[in-house]
Amino acid sequence: MTIRIAIDAMGGDKGLEVTIPASLNALNTFADLHLILVGDEPKIKQALLSQQAIPRDRLTIQSASQVVDMDELPSQALRNKKDSSMRVALDLVKQDQAQACVSAGNTGALMATAKFVLKTLPGIHRPAICTALPTIKKPVYMLDLGANVGADGESLAQFAIMGSVLAKTLHPDITPRVGLLNIGEEEMKGHDRIKLAQQLLRQTPIYYVGYVEGDDIFKGNVDVIACDGFDGNIALKSSEGVAKMISYYLKQAFMRNLVTKLIGLMAAPVLKAFKAKVDPRNYNGASFLGLRKCVIKSHGGADSFAFENAIKVARIEVLHDVPSRIRDEVARLLDEQTQSQTLED
Amino acid sequence: MTIRIAIDAMGGDKGLEVTIPASLNALNTFADLHLILVGDEPKIKQALLSQQAIPRDRLTIQSASQVVDMDELPSQALRNKKDSSMRVALDLVKQDQAQACVSAGNTGALMATAKFVLKTLPGIHRPAICTALPTIKKPVYMLDLGANVGADGESLAQFAIMGSVLAKTLHPDITPRVGLLNIGEEEMKGHDRIKLAQQLLRQTPIYYVGYVEGDDIFKGNVDVIACDGFDGNIALKSSEGVAKMISYYLKQAFMRNLVTKLIGLMAAPVLKAFKAKVDPRNYNGASFLGLRKCVIKSHGGADSFAFENAIKVARIEVLHDVPSRIRDEVARLLDEQTQSQTLED
Repeated sequence: MTIRIAIDAMGGDKGLEVTIPASLNALNTFADLHLILVGDEPKIKQALLSQQAIPRDRLTIQSASQVVDMDELPSQALRNKKDSSMRVALDLVKQDQAQACVSAGNTGALMATAKFVLKTLPGIHRPAICTALPTIKKPVYMLDLGANVGADGESLAQFAIMGSVLAKTLHPDITPRVGLLNIGEEEMKGHDRIKLAQQLLRQTPIYYVGYVEGDDIFKGNVDVIACDGFDGNIALKSSEGVAKMISYYLKQAFMRNLVTKLIGLMAAPVLKAFKAKVDPRNYNGASFLGLRKCVIKSHGGADSFAFENAIKVARIEVLHDVPSRIRDEVARLLDEQTQSQTLED
Repeated sequence: MTIRIAIDAMGGDKGLEVTIPASLNALNTFADLHLILVGDEPKIKQALLSQQAIPRDRLTIQSASQVVDMDELPSQALRNKKDSSMRVALDLVKQDQAQACVSAGNTGALMATAKFVLKTLPGIHRPAICTALPTIKKPVYMLDLGANVGADGESLAQFAIMGSVLAKTLHPDITPRVGLLNIGEEEMKGHDRIKLAQQLLRQTPIYYVGYVEGDDIFKGNVDVIACDGFDGNIALKSSEGVAKMISYYLKQAFMRNLVTKLIGLMAAPVLKAFKAKVDPRNYNGASFLGLRKCVIKSHGGADSFAFENAIKVARIEVLHDVPSRIRDEVARLLDEQTQSQTLED
């Protein structure tokens, strides 16, 4: 089976400089991959000139004349950029010429356009942004990370269910433990919507384990964490911020003087092994769950290594047909709910 | 001037084991300090027996027969624990026998009891929990960290003002730059209450610089960040969680085999210097801003070094008379507001 993925080649802070080498690396790693580079054709061809080992039979260029700016309003991008690399890449998925789209472009525009072009799955209120994050054990899948501000209880429960299906699909050997992000003060514990989501989740067959707090995210004691997009974004960005600060101070400690620099040289292999463990680039590639097709958002500032990881995430989700799995599971739950309501009547 | 601080000696996960040595260290560091250890008198005396260098003229014991449990409901603690070490310590502050209270006990109970015993400053809607956090530059003061879930726009603006007064009081050489925590997507930027808070802050004389995102917390580009207690708690705990995970993987990298362990031994002084820079114990001690007196909350799991830092925070805030400064500044702003409204009429 060939997996065809449309790449928004112009998206992200660095565009082709990142997307072209990442795409070629992915093609050379996975023989089952066919990539469609969407964007400014002459520029793409120019960028390919300097590259080696191009598997031309598994690489297509699809012309698109516009680019969505990183700070463009989603509504404007949707209205005015109908021939953007982002839009055309999504159109290819809609037309079944590709099974997934990967973009490092404007998150809001990508979500708005993806919802418009590909549509939300039946029964799903709102798609959510989900990513794997490192923990001291296995990765945890967290959603929503910014698509929905002020999601209601039902949406939160749906996020949890979609996350659980994703985790189960990618790791068939586990029964994913699912938590809701909350804070610890007993009497004021969280917003009403979180309490409602908890009630709803207790009625589903998913393995809901209860509330988790911010510091639980990285402990590896749950496999899925559902939250409102505002809260998830705050948690994710705060974590990124503190990780950058720690890495700054670690580097500074070794750069202080000649002696510490020499120690740093000796410690380099150990520090390298450590960095590989917590390298956020290994986790680049967030899934837009709840859409009818696979859409993967790369960090806008991703380098080629990180963008390649987003392509890998897209490939895996296509291989496992994640959107269909979510559709089937949600339909099953909704069906059970209807049946139990009918029985109660 | 002698600074008298009431210590909830029984509070926290470890109680006297932490509070006694921390108190004695603080007394031996600051000659202007007088501490009142509040709690089970025989147990306190017993704990003091094993200690050396006790400045008995600056140490008092105040008996209290009860202890608030770490998971006790705040309302129940308030109702049933009128002779708890926490309550008696706050009573001492109310009676002007102490100028501040430091507790590592149950956060919700401490806030509820402090509000009841000491009262909120005139004009302040709700007190907020504020702590200094490390950045790659100077520390940033962040509030609220969990006292208020669903704070409205006016409360958020008050948090920003209180934080600004605190930063200005403790660092008279700076004009604190104040930001509101938000997320980055333009069209859905944050909750309405954050937009309202921004409008309100633009009308005040404080140096409001705009929205900041989670990853900005640790960049040091603002001195004060105001947010809802839910969001602040998520940001703080997520940051703690990722910092612990990073430290776990760093240790693991050096413990992998004999060679890496030897490298670790050589790198130990560098790693120690690095750890000191990001050690959260240096930032232990959160202020309850908006009360009529100083109340400092230590992390429940604080060790003696961290708890001593909370005592230092209390001492500094008493020295600078933070509650009066906040009271005066809020009164001045409210006054200006009334005057400008009168002029408009």
